[in-house]
Formats: sequence, structure tokens, C-alpha cells
Amino acid sequence: MRILTAGESHGEYNLAIIEGFPKGVKIEESFINSELRRRMSGYGRGARMSIEDDKVCIVSGLRNKITLGSPIAVLVKNRDSKISSRKKDNLPALNVPRPSHADLAGAFKYNDKDVRNILERASARETVSRVCTGAICKQFLSQFEIKIAGFTLSVGGVRCTKLPKNISEIRRSTKNSLLNCPDSSAEKKMIKAIDNCRKNKDTLGGVIQIRIEGVSAGIGDFTHFDRRLDARLAYYLMSIPAVKGFEIGLGFEYSRRKGSLSHDSIYYSPRKGFFRKSNNSGGIEGGVSTGEPIVCRIAMKPIATLQKPLDSVNLCSLKQTKAVVERSDTCAIEACGVIAESMSAFVLTELFLDKFGRDSLSDIKSNYRNFLKSRKKRFS
Amino acid sequence: MRILTAGESHGEYNLAIIEGFPKGVKIEESFINSELRRRMSGYGRGARMSIEDDKVCIVSGLRNKITLGSPIAVLVKNRDSKISSRKKDNLPALNVPRPSHADLAGAFKYNDKDVRNILERASARETVSRVCTGAICKQFLSQFEIKIAGFTLSVGGVRCTKLPKNISEIRRSTKNSLLNCPDSSAEKKMIKAIDNCRKNKDTLGGVIQIRIEGVSAGIGDFTHFDRRLDARLAYYLMSIPAVKGFEIGLGFEYSRRKGSLSHDSIYYSPRKGFFRKSNNSGGIEGGVSTGEPIVCRIAMKPIATLQKPLDSVNLCSLKQTKAVVERSDTCAIEACGVIAESMSAFVLTELFLDKFGRDSLSDIKSNYRNFLKSRKKRFS
Amino acid sequence: MRILTAGESHGEYNLAIIEGFPKGVKIEESFINSELRRRMSGYGRGARMSIEDDKVCIVSGLRNKITLGSPIAVLVKNRDSKISSRKKDNLPALNVPRPSHADLAGAFKYNDKDVRNILERASARETVSRVCTGAICKQFLSQFEIKIAGFTLSVGGVRCTKLPKNISEIRRSTKNSLLNCPDSSAEKKMIKAIDNCRKNKDTLGGVIQIRIEGVSAGIGDFTHFDRRLDARLAYYLMSIPAVKGFEIGLGFEYSRRKGSLSHDSIYYSPRKGFFRKSNNSGGIEGGVSTGEPIVCRIAMKPIATLQKPLDSVNLCSLKQTKAVVERSDTCAIEACGVIAESMSAFVLTELFLDKFGRDSLSDIKSNYRNFLKSRKKRFS
Amino acid sequence: MRILTAGESHGEYNLAIIEGFPKGVKIEESFINSELRRRMSGYGRGARMSIEDDKVCIVSGLRNKITLGSPIAVLVKNRDSKISSRKKDNLPALNVPRPSHADLAGAFKYNDKDVRNILERASARETVSRVCTGAICKQFLSQFEIKIAGFTLSVGGVRCTKLPKNISEIRRSTKNSLLNCPDSSAEKKMIKAIDNCRKNKDTLGGVIQIRIEGVSAGIGDFTHFDRRLDARLAYYLMSIPAVKGFEIGLGFEYSRRKGSLSHDSIYYSPRKGFFRKSNNSGGIEGGVSTGEPIVCRIAMKPIATLQKPLDSVNLCSLKQTKAVVERSDTCAIEACGVIAESMSAFVLTELFLDKFGRDSLSDIKSNYRNFLKSRKKRFS
Repeated sequence: MRILTAGESHGEYNLAIIEGFPKGVKIEESFINSELRRRMSGYGRGARMSIEDDKVCIVSGLRNKITLGSPIAVLVKNRDSKISSRKKDNLPALNVPRPSHADLAGAFKYNDKDVRNILERASARETVSRVCTGAICKQFLSQFEIKIAGFTLSVGGVRCTKLPKNISEIRRSTKNSLLNCPDSSAEKKMIKAIDNCRKNKDTLGGVIQIRIEGVSAGIGDFTHFDRRLDARLAYYLMSIPAVKGFEIGLGFEYSRRKGSLSHDSIYYSPRKGFFRKSNNSGGIEGGVSTGEPIVCRIAMKPIATLQKPLDSVNLCSLKQTKAVVERSDTCAIEACGVIAESMSAFVLTELFLDKFGRDSLSDIKSNYRNFLKSRKKRFS
Repeated sequence: MRILTAGESHGEYNLAIIEGFPKGVKIEESFINSELRRRMSGYGRGARMSIEDDKVCIVSGLRNKITLGSPIAVLVKNRDSKISSRKKDNLPALNVPRPSHADLAGAFKYNDKDVRNILERASARETVSRVCTGAICKQFLSQFEIKIAGFTLSVGGVRCTKLPKNISEIRRSTKNSLLNCPDSSAEKKMIKAIDNCRKNKDTLGGVIQIRIEGVSAGIGDFTHFDRRLDARLAYYLMSIPAVKGFEIGLGFEYSRRKGSLSHDSIYYSPRKGFFRKSNNSGGIEGGVSTGEPIVCRIAMKPIATLQKPLDSVNLCSLKQTKAVVERSDTCAIEACGVIAESMSAFVLTELFLDKFGRDSLSDIKSNYRNFLKSRKKRFS
Repeated sequence: MRILTAGESHGEYNLAIIEGFPKGVKIEESFINSELRRRMSGYGRGARMSIEDDKVCIVSGLRNKITLGSPIAVLVKNRDSKISSRKKDNLPALNVPRPSHADLAGAFKYNDKDVRNILERASARETVSRVCTGAICKQFLSQFEIKIAGFTLSVGGVRCTKLPKNISEIRRSTKNSLLNCPDSSAEKKMIKAIDNCRKNKDTLGGVIQIRIEGVSAGIGDFTHFDRRLDARLAYYLMSIPAVKGFEIGLGFEYSRRKGSLSHDSIYYSPRKGFFRKSNNSGGIEGGVSTGEPIVCRIAMKPIATLQKPLDSVNLCSLKQTKAVVERSDTCAIEACGVIAESMSAFVLTELFLDKFGRDSLSDIKSNYRNFLKSRKKRFS
Repeated sequence: MRILTAGESHGEYNLAIIEGFPKGVKIEESFINSELRRRMSGYGRGARMSIEDDKVCIVSGLRNKITLGSPIAVLVKNRDSKISSRKKDNLPALNVPRPSHADLAGAFKYNDKDVRNILERASARETVSRVCTGAICKQFLSQFEIKIAGFTLSVGGVRCTKLPKNISEIRRSTKNSLLNCPDSSAEKKMIKAIDNCRKNKDTLGGVIQIRIEGVSAGIGDFTHFDRRLDARLAYYLMSIPAVKGFEIGLGFEYSRRKGSLSHDSIYYSPRKGFFRKSNNSGGIEGGVSTGEPIVCRIAMKPIATLQKPLDSVNLCSLKQTKAVVERSDTCAIEACGVIAESMSAFVLTELFLDKFGRDSLSDIKSNYRNFLKSRKKRFS
């Protein structure tokens, strides 16, 4: 499976082409739109979010809502760009790079002192395409009872103490949350922290936990290092703007524990088959899924654009100045969670197809059933 | 640039082919061998390490020590495998998967109850090929004054308090260390912790910090998510066996800080050009190198094989049993650091060639000089 | 550089995303549209061509007509699809596979007896995206004085006897041709052959010759087989629907000649540098451009859809029947030539960037100049 | 599946790593060696062939002759290189590029006037690795009754008139041939032509036909142009040194025929299922296998090195001179056929795995059976 995304912040569309997606999968645009809505929501978002009423338009790859096996192209119109004065062509040059953005590094790379030419693509607006892709992949995975859910574990150091045990609990406990947070008392403190930051023109980040259920053992591979499931998850999750850390299972906590308190012993019962009493590995051993839920976390840095601007330099005059102040979020942790779910869905779909073949959903289902059946009869 | 590795733990060779490496680079086998020696060393290693006196043999891609531009093939003979009773063909079947290894997940994947067929390739022995590759890439990068050094930041929760400020300090302070640790008093406690663990038949992991100096701004890319330098580093570093966490710059600490205390303001002086007073970003903004040192960390889990074996199940009888006890390390943090340096060297070489072209070192040098010069004259 | 295309014959759009294209290249939509017009023209085309008044819309990757380095997305609206009764969703099932199309093989592959689900994507309509891509690549290549031109060498066995010697001659001699044919007396016979075929409800193919001028020596590579320029050209040109043969230089004629009459001896003059008196190799030796013009040919089979339908079978009833008769061309040799130029432009751009680096046009130009200069001073 | 090859003409080894090959396939080294022997044989070969008694050594990826799913590494020692005076390090510089070789283009590319540094890798010796790879792939394909056989269709313009109808006939009729030619009276004339050429210090090429039987319908794809089976075959076959033309089915003959005499009508009988009475398409329609035998042809140019040397130029003195005369073949058509079979086997294995999944032979077999069964029950 291959994916390419395109689109700038003030361009006409954000779009993606997903190539190699199987035939026969029913795709609901309404589900993609609901995921896009989740991407726009969350406490701490700024003014642009109200403009961004994103709706997907699938322009190829479907016939009567069913995938054809041909490349799927999704378009999301940028409402912002309709007003011609906001079109990227007309926007004035911007010569002051914003710290913690791609602006200055991009100016070096592309030899351009108008950082507008950098930030248009480096914008988080691009993640719209990834959420569409993820929402399509989720509809494939759901055919195999694979579910993905992320939640906010901490914001600005305020951490949940009550953690959901499975995806139903995640869904139930975050349903009415403004921050996709399962612990309502922690959430109150998070909101307070965000309010404080907004007042002080500051910003916050946090930690997101992703849980994936229903992945059979055997996805990913140890035979070549770049095929490992954990490495692929890290690759795609670390590609999300503002994400600066990734861990799976115990993650960094592993570095503090002894082996005897770290590893997941193996058990068997005729009813459950092979199972573990702990899941410290986060569902992946040797780069391959174990059949236990996959659990990983990512760290998001605080929003880069502050209303109390940071020091910067004008690339033309080389004079010290302040970074430009523009509308922005105080905290966008909920959006980041949706994007992380989306990237996880993409990685899993790709490796699932690698293992179980391609082309038509009915063939893949039959291959998958055979796989499960042959393993149930014990290994050969 | 492409790389493939091959080889099993008890096979005749571990090997790699590196394709797309430029012509004209002088490669010293002695340097590769010294890196292989570093991979074998460190306090807490087991019996196999004394057998593994690895020597590289470069069988293609060089003429009179200079690269030809053709694929470079490296071979490392497994001394162990010389004794025919230790050849993988003759080794007895192993039906008890070891927890925290690829054994059980691999048995599912490949439908095999003899986990010997899994562990031969899932073995950390495979990293020999990666260290050779890294040592070759380092010799390319050194032509551009790019240096990579890792050190042990913590072992089993014991953490350095004295941190080196740059690569010369890393090299100086770790020179006589048994654990690649720059803080000698922390190291004493680490050694004690390892001794304790060995006595108790337990194991330890730790945290490694990698520092890369001399990377100009502009390596990596924000224009497509899978081209980001941080994502690529995460991909390759998380592919190292036993690595379960990755962070860059402040990493997870970002999630606890406010934006105003997180982002690296931008300054300029005629002498230094653009610079920062802090490097919280770890040298990467928007997926692109900033010109500041790249700093990242990985978390290593404790060695999976314990001398006090964990619970497991026999895949034939389905009876509960204990995992096999075999010679193993108590802690292999130093080796992990060398492998992490190697993977970093590979990622950087790949993205460096992407930016500055291929084929011959002299052309690449000339392209690189032009790049630096054109940016010095300010951006166009 | 990566490219993905999407779109079905009766979908809303055909589109492409081109990723990895350098920054700083001026792109004229008018040139792309003129290439799209060439794709629609030629003697022997059917009714659909008059509907297909294709106009490109570039929705990302440009600002004020200059590329940004971010992915370029091109959209071409299918005018046909505007009439809702012609939308692919509403079109009736089609159960009779057409010989020489993907219909039956696709039905097997995707397990679908409604071949409408196959032919929507297998349609030659998809080449619209490739022509857009090629027209963009040509605008990059023209910055380096690289020119590509194809012409019709034969139609249905009628072959040009007067051949143009270079691209200016190709352009001049085909300017007023209805078949992109440089030999007006051969063209008359070709038109007659097409007229005869149309009358007899039959179809024709032909041979196209592609000539590329201005490619410096050194593009492509022999160090790994999949990097060879001739292999890449063959790959992409053979991917054009209806193309069933490819040859470079003397091609199949080589198999009949002796070596002494086949190979291009090497000469040198201070003015010309190294040169050849013949170009039997078609400008490529050992998979690498020699600096001589690149010359290759492709064979196009006759249009698959006949007005006098071929035998086929109904996939539901399994009864013998006739293939569906639908509007179609008698000969589409001119379109095929435009597509072949486009794919050649893509291959060359890709390998050019591989050699001379990426990111910004000004850097690439400077790298290219250095390359030429260093080779002029003789080899080092 | 990925493959990398390495090795120079006077290096110690030629080798390949094949990654992504399934587990559970029995691999006979003796079969690989017999393919290597075929590569060395044929009337018209030179002196080196007697030195090249190639034997493969599989150093990873197998246990007790069965593939493990881990990368397979094959090594072939260059006997030539044992004599230290023939080691590439010690060989003298060569400053006269040989026409029709990569020498001059490579000198430009890599900026090197010692063309020894080019020709060591550009040598046809590299195809040893490809033959090993193909022989491994053939052993996979034979599990699915897929057979590949090539034969010599013409040499220097002398063409077979008696053509074998299927692979058994190819095997039977070429068994005692010195040129892998099925038509013994044509072969006599070919041998005469070769003898004449040798006497006149000239060389010859020819045409090879490849036939593949047992490929089910549905391999390859039309959904994205670079997935087409015919394009992939062209890519890999055109990557063989000296191959300058490729055609499938009628190939260039298509360009001379009318549609009504070109396309393969579709028929059905309860016993045979869908079938054709002709196979002009060469077993591929729309880039997908039809289930009919795959038939393609390649054109080989005459051996580049003549004993009556061509004109060339000394890269140091820039003086006109004669190309170096070295031991070489007069005709190597049989070797080229073996390499073409090998590349075809690789392409098919890759696309077969794409369609039917990976990992273990037993899973792939079960997936394949399901596919065939579901299509037999008519399409769904």
C-alpha cells in the first residue's frame, strides 16, 4: 500500500491518494467526516477551528460506496482559501521564522527567505489528509474486528490516575470529555491548566496513549529490521507534527526495572489458547504482534506559536525581532490523538495486507480465516 | 541508498549489502573492526562475547580500499558456527518459547513449533551487520565533519548526573568506562546494580543518549511525512532489538512544560550566523535539521533471557514449563549504544545523499560546498 | 520522486500527486493543457475525444506559478461525468468481457463478474494523469535544455521513409500532420489505411519513435540492475496501455547484425569532446546515458474495441456472445506518442534528481554546472 | 520481496541477498549449480568460461535445506580471483574505454579515467547473482506448477522455423542443442555463422523467446501503471546486459496487423473454463495474466568486445587508439536465455507473493487453493 498526500494551508484542497487498498470494502464518507470533526475539536483550540468545517469528497476508487481496488483519492476543500485575499498566492511575504516550526530549517533547505513558502506545507493542516486515510483504513480493519482508540493521558504534566482497561472503557469514559480524557477529575485540572496558559499567552502539550485491540499474533516481522511493527509505528507516529517521543508497552519505564519484573511470562489454557498475565511488551515482541492489545504512547510538545511571541530574526534585515503573533491553539492534544490513531490504522493495514494478501476483501477474509484456523489446530 | 542484511545466529556468516554508496570514499577495515569490538564489550556481558571475535571482510565495492560506487558487501564469520555441532542444521528442536523474545509471536507468524527456526534470525547477532554498515557510513560522514557519539545515560534506574556537553567530552569521559558512561561515580553504582542482578540471575536495561554534531541545517524534509528526519531516526532506532522508547530533544519532558519554556528562540550574529541559546528541539524542527547538534535518547529493556527462568509453555505438549536457561548477558547497554550510533549513521548518510546528490565523493563535496556558500550569502 | 495517479473513466476527476519535485520551477498550466490537447488529437479518434476538452487544475505545490517543493497535485475534471446518468455509480452492470482488455483477467483477479468495476480504472482515460505529470517534468527538464519528442514511425505496417534527424526536424515536419508523422507521403497512406479500417469496423496500431536530446552522459547506472536507464525507460513505456514492444537504438535489428557493424566507436576532438559517428546504442551504454541523443521505439497494438465485435462469453450465463460495441477510436497512435513522451520525461527527471540532488532548482543547477565543468577539465 | 546483488568481475565473490522469500520452501543447491552451469555453456563462448566453474554457497536463510523466512544470502566464489595477480586491487589502470560497454559513460558518471573502476562492476559476471536468485525463485514457483523455459529463436539473423509448442517440447528439443535452440537445422546454420564470426574476429547476438506456463489468471495489476506484469517483465529483462529490445505476444508484429486479426476472442467450455483459441497477447491483457502461457522475446546485441578492436580514445592522452583486445565470447545467447529465465522467475515470484500473501509456504498454498476454488465456482 502506498500513500501520498498533498495540499498547503491556504491552498484550495488537502488531498491524498491511497494506492493498493483492497476491493470490496464499504466506505462511509460520514465516518470520515466524523473523524475530521474529532480532529477539529478539543478544549484549547483557536479561532481557525471554527472555520475548518471539513468535509471529505472521495473522487475515485469507489463505486456505490464500495472500493474498486483502484487508487482512492480524497479531497478536502479548505474553506479558508475561498476568500481570495487568503489565497496563498496573494499572501504577503513573511521573513521572520517562527521558533519551533520548520521555518528556519526550511529556509536553509530550500534557500528562501520568504518562510511563507515553507510554512504553507509545513502546516498541521496537512494532517487532514492523514485523518481521511486513517478513517478509510479503520473501515478496513473493522472488517477484522481490529479497533483503535487513543486518549489523552496527560496535559502539561497533569496526568490521569484512572486509566481505562480496554477500548470500550476508553470510548465510554471519553465520550463527554472535552479533551478526550478518560479521567474526569484529571480533565478538570487539565482544563484549568489550559485556561491559565491561554490567559498567559502560553501553550501546552501532553501525552497520548494509543490502544489497538483485535490484532492477531503474527503481524510485523523480525526477519529484516525495517519490517518490525514497533519500528513502523514509531516511524509513522513520530512523523506527526509536534510529536517528540514514542514508547511502547513499558517504554522508558523498562529502563528502570529488572528483567524479572519486566517480561511477560507465557501461559496456556485450552479456552484462551496462549495468553499472558501482563502486557508490559505493549503487544509486540521481536517486532511482531503477540495477540495482546498493542499499547503505545507519544509525547506532544506545546503548541509552537505563542501569543506572547518568542525572539526571532528578520531574514532580510538580519535584525532581532519578535515572531509573528497569529491565531493559534493553546493545546491541540485531542487532534493529535486522532492523527495518531489514523497513522496507526495505516501502519496496521499495510502490514496486514503484507501478511494476508491483497486485491479483494473476500480473498483476504478467507486467507485470514485459514490462518487463524491453522494456528488453532496448534502449530504444524 | 538501500541495505539488506542476512545471517543467523549459528549460521556461517552475518552479512550486509549496501547499495547506492558513493564512489571515492576510503574505507578502513580496521575502523569497522574496532566498532565490532565496541559492540562486544561492556560490563555485564556473558560468555558468548569472548567467542565473538568479529572481523569484517569486505568482499565487494572497494578497490585498493576506495569505494567504487558499486554495492559494498561485508561478511563477518560466526566463529561459533565453526564447530559443526553448533551449526544451526544440527541443533535440536526447541519447543519452549522464551518470553520477551520473538519466539511465540514468530511461531504464530510462521506456523512453526520449533522456535529454533525463529530465534536463529531474531537473535541480536544480526546487529553485527548493522554495525558494519554504520561504520562504513561513519567514514562517509566524517568527510563532512559529521560526528556521532552515544553514551549510557542510565542503567536500571541509576542515572548520570554529570553530562558531557559535546562529542569531545563524551569521548574523553567514556574512554576508560566499562559501560560507555561519562559519569564515573554513576558508573560505579551501575556496576553494582549489574553485579547484584547477575547474582540474582536477573537482568537490566537502561537509557542511551545519541549526539550528532556537524549536520548542517536542511537535512530531512517536511514536505512529505515519511521524509522527516526525526521520523526516520525513530524508525531505525526503534528497529534495534530491545529498544522500546525513543525521544528527541526534550522528548517526554516537553509534555510537562509550557511552550514559553520549551521552544528555542532564534538569534543571529555575523560571526555565528543564526543560532539558538537552547537546543530543546534536539536539533530538528519540522522534521528538518536546524544545524544545532542532534540529540536523542532510546530506552532499552532488560535482557530478555534470565538465568532464573520465566514461565512458559511447551508448544508440543502444551504443558506449563520454564523457559530454557542459556548463556546470556546481564546488561548489554554498551552494545546497544554502538548499534544506535550505527543506525543513526545510516539514516544521516541516506538523507545527506538525498539532498546533495550521489555517485562520486568529489561531486558531493562540491555540491555541499556550494550549498553552504549560497546560504552564507544569505538566502536568495 | 514518487507519483501516484487516481481516477476512473466515469469518475469525477483524474488526478495525480507528484512528490519530490524540486522547488523553484515555473509551471505553466497552459503548457500542460496543450499537451492534454495533443493527447486528444490525431486522425482516427472517436466520438469521446470531442467531449474530452481537458483542462488541468493544479491544486497544490505552486505559489504564483512557482513550485514550492511540496507535492504537486493535478486535477482534470471528466466532462463526461457531469451528466449524472453517466456517473459510474449509475452505469449498468457489464458482464461480457471485451477481448484484449483487462476485463476478463481483472474479473479473475478481483473476483467480480461485473467487468464495469474493472474497466473503469483499466481505461486509457487514466493516461490523462500521466500526461499532466510528463508536462510538469518537461518544464523541469527544459531548464537543462533537455528536449523530448516522439513521432509516428508507422501505422498498420505503413512506414515512414523520410526520417527527421533531430528534434527541430521532428517538430517542423510533424507540425501540420494529422498523425504526428514527419513523412507526408507516408501519412497519406496511413490515413487511407485508417479510413479503410474505420469503414470495415476494424482498428490499427503502429510504432512510435521517441527522441531525447540534451541528456548529458552519466544518467542512469550500471551498479545495480534496477537503476539502468534503459530498463527504467522500458518499465515505464511498457506500462502504457496497448504498448507491447520496446526497443532502444538498433533494438531487434542488433540481433541480425555483426558486432563490427553494430557498436559505436569512440572519437575525440577538442571542440566536440568525446563523440560517436554512429548512435546504434540509442544513447545508452551499460545502462548509462552516453551524451548522444536517446532514441527508442514502442509498438502499439491495434485499438482493442472493434465496431465489428469479437467473440466473448457472458460471465453470468456463461453463454457465448459478442463483445459490446461502444464508441471508440480506430487508431490512437498520436495520443500514445504523447503519453510515451510523458513517461520518458518522468523517468529522466527522476534519474536526473538522483544524480544531481534535490530540493531547489538553483542548487540543482549549480550542481549540474559543476558536474559539466569538472568533466570538461577531463576526468580526475 | 527485495533483492540486492554485489560483486565485481575480479572480486572474491559475487553474491546476492534475497529478502522476503517465504518460509518452508526446499532449496536444492544442486539445482542452482546446474543453472550456473547452463549460464556458462553454449557454443561460441570464450576462454573464461572454462575457468568459471561456479558453485553456489548458501550462507543464510536455510536450515536443513528448508527456507526459514529470513533473508537468503548466496555466495559464488570467483575462481579467477584466487590468483592474486588477477585480484582487482592489483590490476593495472585501463584508460581506453571499450565501445558498447559502460566504460565511457561510466567514466563521465563517476569521474574516473581508469575505466577498470567501471568495468569491474559493469561486467556480465554480475549475472551470476541473478541466476542464483532465479534458481531459488524457480524452486518456489515449481510448488505451484509454474514453469519457465527460454530458447534461442535466432542468432545473427538465422531464425528457427520449427517452433516448440509448449515447455515440454522446448525441453525435449533443446536437450542436445549447443545453443539452446529447438530447431536442429537452424542450429547448424547458427553454428556456422558463429564460426565465421570467430574466424573474422567478429561477434553475434540474437533473439531469445521466454515461455512461462502455469500462471493463473490474475497476476499483475492494472490499477497503477507500475504494477503491470508486462511492464515489470520489461523492466527486469531489459536490465540484462546487452538486451536492447523486448516484446510480448505479437509484440512489434501487432503494429502491422489489424485489430480483427490481433485480439484473442474469449470462449468458455465447462471442461476448460474460459479459454482462447489464440494467444497473441502473450498471456497478458491490461497488465494482468490471462491464464494463457506468457510468451515474450528479447533482442540481444552482439558481444561488445571484438578481437578485431574498434576505435577508441585514451582518456589520459586523448589520442585516438584501438580498444583493448581481451578474451571474450563470440556469442553468449544461451547464457542470456538463462539470465532471462531467472529475471522472469524473480518478477513472477514477487507478484505472486503480492497477491497470495507471504510468510509460510503452507499459508500461501492454502490461499492459492482458495483463490482457484472461489474462481471456479464462477465469479461472485
